[in-house]
Amino acid sequence: MHSFMNDYSEGAYPRILELLVKSNFQQNKGYGEDVHSERAREYIRRALKREDVDIHFIPGGTMTNLLVISALLRPHQCVISPDTGHINVHETGAIEATGHKVIATPSVEGKLTPGSIQAALDYHKGEHMVQPKIIYISNSTELGTIYSKAELTAIHDICRQNDLILFLDGARIGSALMAKTNDLSLEDVAGLVDVFYIGGTKNGALLGEALVICRDDLKKDFRYLIKQRGALMAKGFVLGIQFEALFQDGLFFQLADHANKMAEMVAGALKKYGYSFYVEPCTNQLFPILPNNIMDKLSDGFDFYVQESINQDETVIRLVTSWATTQESVDCLTELLSINKLDS
Amino acid sequence: MHSFMNDYSEGAYPRILELLVKSNFQQNKGYGEDVHSERAREYIRRALKREDVDIHFIPGGTMTNLLVISALLRPHQCVISPDTGHINVHETGAIEATGHKVIATPSVEGKLTPGSIQAALDYHKGEHMVQPKIIYISNSTELGTIYSKAELTAIHDICRQNDLILFLDGARIGSALMAKTNDLSLEDVAGLVDVFYIGGTKNGALLGEALVICRDDLKKDFRYLIKQRGALMAKGFVLGIQFEALFQDGLFFQLADHANKMAEMVAGALKKYGYSFYVEPCTNQLFPILPNNIMDKLSDGFDFYVQESINQDETVIRLVTSWATTQESVDCLTELLSINKLDS
Amino acid sequence: MHSFMNDYSEGAYPRILELLVKSNFQQNKGYGEDVHSERAREYIRRALKREDVDIHFIPGGTMTNLLVISALLRPHQCVISPDTGHINVHETGAIEATGHKVIATPSVEGKLTPGSIQAALDYHKGEHMVQPKIIYISNSTELGTIYSKAELTAIHDICRQNDLILFLDGARIGSALMAKTNDLSLEDVAGLVDVFYIGGTKNGALLGEALVICRDDLKKDFRYLIKQRGALMAKGFVLGIQFEALFQDGLFFQLADHANKMAEMVAGALKKYGYSFYVEPCTNQLFPILPNNIMDKLSDGFDFYVQESINQDETVIRLVTSWATTQESVDCLTELLSINKLDS
Amino acid sequence: MHSFMNDYSEGAYPRILELLVKSNFQQNKGYGEDVHSERAREYIRRALKREDVDIHFIPGGTMTNLLVISALLRPHQCVISPDTGHINVHETGAIEATGHKVIATPSVEGKLTPGSIQAALDYHKGEHMVQPKIIYISNSTELGTIYSKAELTAIHDICRQNDLILFLDGARIGSALMAKTNDLSLEDVAGLVDVFYIGGTKNGALLGEALVICRDDLKKDFRYLIKQRGALMAKGFVLGIQFEALFQDGLFFQLADHANKMAEMVAGALKKYGYSFYVEPCTNQLFPILPNNIMDKLSDGFDFYVQESINQDETVIRLVTSWATTQESVDCLTELLSINKLDS
Repeated sequence: MHSFMNDYSEGAYPRILELLVKSNFQQNKGYGEDVHSERAREYIRRALKREDVDIHFIPGGTMTNLLVISALLRPHQCVISPDTGHINVHETGAIEATGHKVIATPSVEGKLTPGSIQAALDYHKGEHMVQPKIIYISNSTELGTIYSKAELTAIHDICRQNDLILFLDGARIGSALMAKTNDLSLEDVAGLVDVFYIGGTKNGALLGEALVICRDDLKKDFRYLIKQRGALMAKGFVLGIQFEALFQDGLFFQLADHANKMAEMVAGALKKYGYSFYVEPCTNQLFPILPNNIMDKLSDGFDFYVQESINQDETVIRLVTSWATTQESVDCLTELLSINKLDS
Repeated sequence: MHSFMNDYSEGAYPRILELLVKSNFQQNKGYGEDVHSERAREYIRRALKREDVDIHFIPGGTMTNLLVISALLRPHQCVISPDTGHINVHETGAIEATGHKVIATPSVEGKLTPGSIQAALDYHKGEHMVQPKIIYISNSTELGTIYSKAELTAIHDICRQNDLILFLDGARIGSALMAKTNDLSLEDVAGLVDVFYIGGTKNGALLGEALVICRDDLKKDFRYLIKQRGALMAKGFVLGIQFEALFQDGLFFQLADHANKMAEMVAGALKKYGYSFYVEPCTNQLFPILPNNIMDKLSDGFDFYVQESINQDETVIRLVTSWATTQESVDCLTELLSINKLDS
Repeated sequence: MHSFMNDYSEGAYPRILELLVKSNFQQNKGYGEDVHSERAREYIRRALKREDVDIHFIPGGTMTNLLVISALLRPHQCVISPDTGHINVHETGAIEATGHKVIATPSVEGKLTPGSIQAALDYHKGEHMVQPKIIYISNSTELGTIYSKAELTAIHDICRQNDLILFLDGARIGSALMAKTNDLSLEDVAGLVDVFYIGGTKNGALLGEALVICRDDLKKDFRYLIKQRGALMAKGFVLGIQFEALFQDGLFFQLADHANKMAEMVAGALKKYGYSFYVEPCTNQLFPILPNNIMDKLSDGFDFYVQESINQDETVIRLVTSWATTQESVDCLTELLSINKLDS
Repeated sequence: MHSFMNDYSEGAYPRILELLVKSNFQQNKGYGEDVHSERAREYIRRALKREDVDIHFIPGGTMTNLLVISALLRPHQCVISPDTGHINVHETGAIEATGHKVIATPSVEGKLTPGSIQAALDYHKGEHMVQPKIIYISNSTELGTIYSKAELTAIHDICRQNDLILFLDGARIGSALMAKTNDLSLEDVAGLVDVFYIGGTKNGALLGEALVICRDDLKKDFRYLIKQRGALMAKGFVLGIQFEALFQDGLFFQLADHANKMAEMVAGALKKYGYSFYVEPCTNQLFPILPNNIMDKLSDGFDFYVQESINQDETVIRLVTSWATTQESVDCLTELLSINKLDS
């Protein structure tokens, strides 16, 4: 059985485990004030070409989302999210549990547009309605799509014009930035958004997200807020060590690149054999549309997520590759596809 | 420099890391539904001699505390805690952030007594006051003391009589249960409390607490609540693997025993050379009272936490041992103490 | 200037004020435990033909909504509301501020349907999503429409089948029950829903909503929850006296009937002179579609709310009548309409 | 039976009811934007000699407390309150329900002191503890005592030095300012605190508190927050009219003066006949210490609150006077006391 179920099935990239083992008996300060976390911050700042950002390591993505959003909103304020956004559909109301409404806004291939943001702003006027304050986007999105520099700049501009905070969920930012069609650098992202995070969990770490706060006025007392939400780990160095390994010499990008390359091969095979996609693939998540009989054959040897039934005969499935996806798994999949070409 | 600062300075006990490395490339189900987590649950149930408990693995202690308390209270209900309780003083209002008051109740050496609980119950009457519903205690406590079986039974009884939920914070339950003066078994604990957790972070794991729900009526929908608080880890197997290693063959207890033995040697030396204690030591946390000049000498070679000034000349410090404390560190400390005997 | 802006422009129906004046110097118990509140409860129970309901008087509608919903949900549960529901759009995130998501569900003329409820239930499965537990509806709705007995029964049935709580916002229940096309009695409502309230503010009282809890298992500790939300008034008798006056001899229904009759006359004139409606009118809220030039003429002599632009030339406005609307105001409006017939 | 139970047993001072009746059929704007509310704001600003304050009318005291505190704190911040403070003991955890810890601080006769505030500030350091941000005090206090100008100034100073917000609960500010020993004016209060409210409910209104925000940086978006907590009344003019009546020509102070004078007579009689007090009386709340047999005799003809048992033989009771207390009631009480002199 080969798993294309998700990008968090295996442990960690070996070099990360090696650094954990190597530094295992060092005595570290608690709560993220250790030398590994400090070094990881330096490496990330170097990658961002920004000395002035605050960086905190948080165990997981949902926790980072709820932490950031509740930290930066007053009680009557809310967050605008794509209707497909993770905070809107797959976090069990984590944001609302901190007191804030998520305004689900129509999206195009998982992405917010200036038009949809503006419509939400225009609709929410006056004290009988919540006040939009944060724009939440993901890159790559829940559908594996990415924001171009022009698109992100347009959203940045609308945020500036309306005194909004732009928050980017980067649980899969590695894959986004290594996409062939991507024209954004990590530095660009840090310049265009106000807060974002760099996902470790889905890119080779055991766990961990690096939260980057780019705007000075948003930094204050963040460690209090991390602690309050239960996200300040006693052994914070466990997160620090992993990001140290990921950012010392570009491992983070290499792992994402590997995942993308594996996905590209799978996507290429799917196209070659006649299959179409729910959205055009570019990162490590693929959403091919398969006839149900093909899907059934696939499920004999491969794990994947069944996304959505398109009609009586066809289904969208999700195939995800990762740093751990092997050429062998991809070859097996490709072979199965070659035997099951679509008539067309 | 030898650190007696806390029990979370080092990584993990080597056998835990080895199991992480060994199982690194297995493909696991996400969110704690993997085989390692399942196996760890079996091992823990075996140690508890209870098949009917629900077990969830949570990244950290504060998160477990806020999760459990907010899961089990209605909005107008509150939790009674020792005034020294971790939730009352050292979690940045994490419980209140979920909407509930913590009633800080006088404690004796970090422990709640039936009398103090009854007084709190008697005081909170009628709809203009919060309604007590959970009793929160720690074992071992913030002062390193432990509950005897008789003491825990008395609190259990008062909870049954008043329809209260008894929740035990076991961040350091390993050290408590391995204390020489302890007469509680893990099985006893599970029989006397309604919910508790078994702390991994402070007993040899990289991170993780095993939450045990003993009462059927408290189990419902807990995975929803874990997810909502951001505590359902994508790579839940990282926690599962660690508890698998800890509970397969009693490693958990061996590590706690080591910590206690190291503490006992330190305590013995302190007593031998004339020092007294803020509370009589029995677990891995020691609170000796030192003349300030001795404390200063100690701080040249050892890291520790300065707890509280007793008077102009004396200070209570906290020395903590762990699974990772070496005989060498203890010997160095003992030697320094032998040179600095108290005149008496 | 005649106001058709809303049904809360004037003070109270004179008989209510008279009873307030008459009982002004009586010494009452505080917090709603007075004889007036008790008597009002008896009168309402009589009107409901139900002895077993709990009744609490709450100052306002938003407060009642947030109180009820937060009282009855566990943290991971949510409320299903019509997309047009007051809690979804016009309460500044009051429900979310108590920690719960509002699932906005497609509605037909302001009403939920079993189909839309079922679709929401089908979509929300598993612990990564919120768990629906309360169905929130209004009668009359935000669009002035009403539920038939068959419609309410169908929603009741789906709630029973899925262990859901049915909560009816009755801020305008008086007008709903007195509608010509209505086939529901107050008794029917109490039998079909689990919790609802009888709106005083919009039907002749200075302020106040009578919350009725029909299901035994939902009653517990409600006064604690009322107090906690700041809704337990020291002078609770001020609310009690008003509902005493409203329900002693049917005044509540007479006032609603008057409002409806005034609305009916206005609706009749609008139809007679060629105007159509956004939804067919039946209660005290009318939503005619007016050419913009007619709307402008109307605004010279009348206050009303501009609901929504339909196209370049036409706008939906809202006209609301109340217990205080005079025949004279209606006649003036009718006359203006007769001069401005639509060509057709 | 004469009631000295509290100051909210009767309806409203007649002139207030008269203004409600007189303006009953005027058509007002909703939600506090009506002419009466505007006029009441002008009158209050005149009384404060401050044009620059924002004034909002809120239905009740608990609601005002929870609204203000949750509006002005970030999630990790907390409020320091006297241990006897209303928010700490008599609001069913209303503040915690909005997410914030109340730090109960030792008080002297119901009052916070700079020393107790400083101790609380000193104790709460670092991100593992909540961060104090609001100081909450009441004037008069729960024990009927008042702050002198010097005392309030000292607290003001400590707030300025530590960037804290000073919030004064003025549910009984009328009685406080009319106390013989008082040296504070309403203007002084507005100059020394950042936010406070002027209690109507306990000083002759049917309901209502006038919230005064003195500091510009605290005013933003307050109407959103009022709405979100359910405190923005549709018929806001009902509150406005009452404060219009109270502040047009000093009625507010006359009513408080009457209450105090009645209390003074009762206190005088108690002293004359040998009784002592739990705290020296100066406002409309008296806390005499009575032998239990005298207390029993008193309870035959008078309603009052039994505060606390002092010892086997003596009890502290609370006697409260109000705008509605009659000379006749006072005379009856005085007479009963004269018959039951204390032997001494």
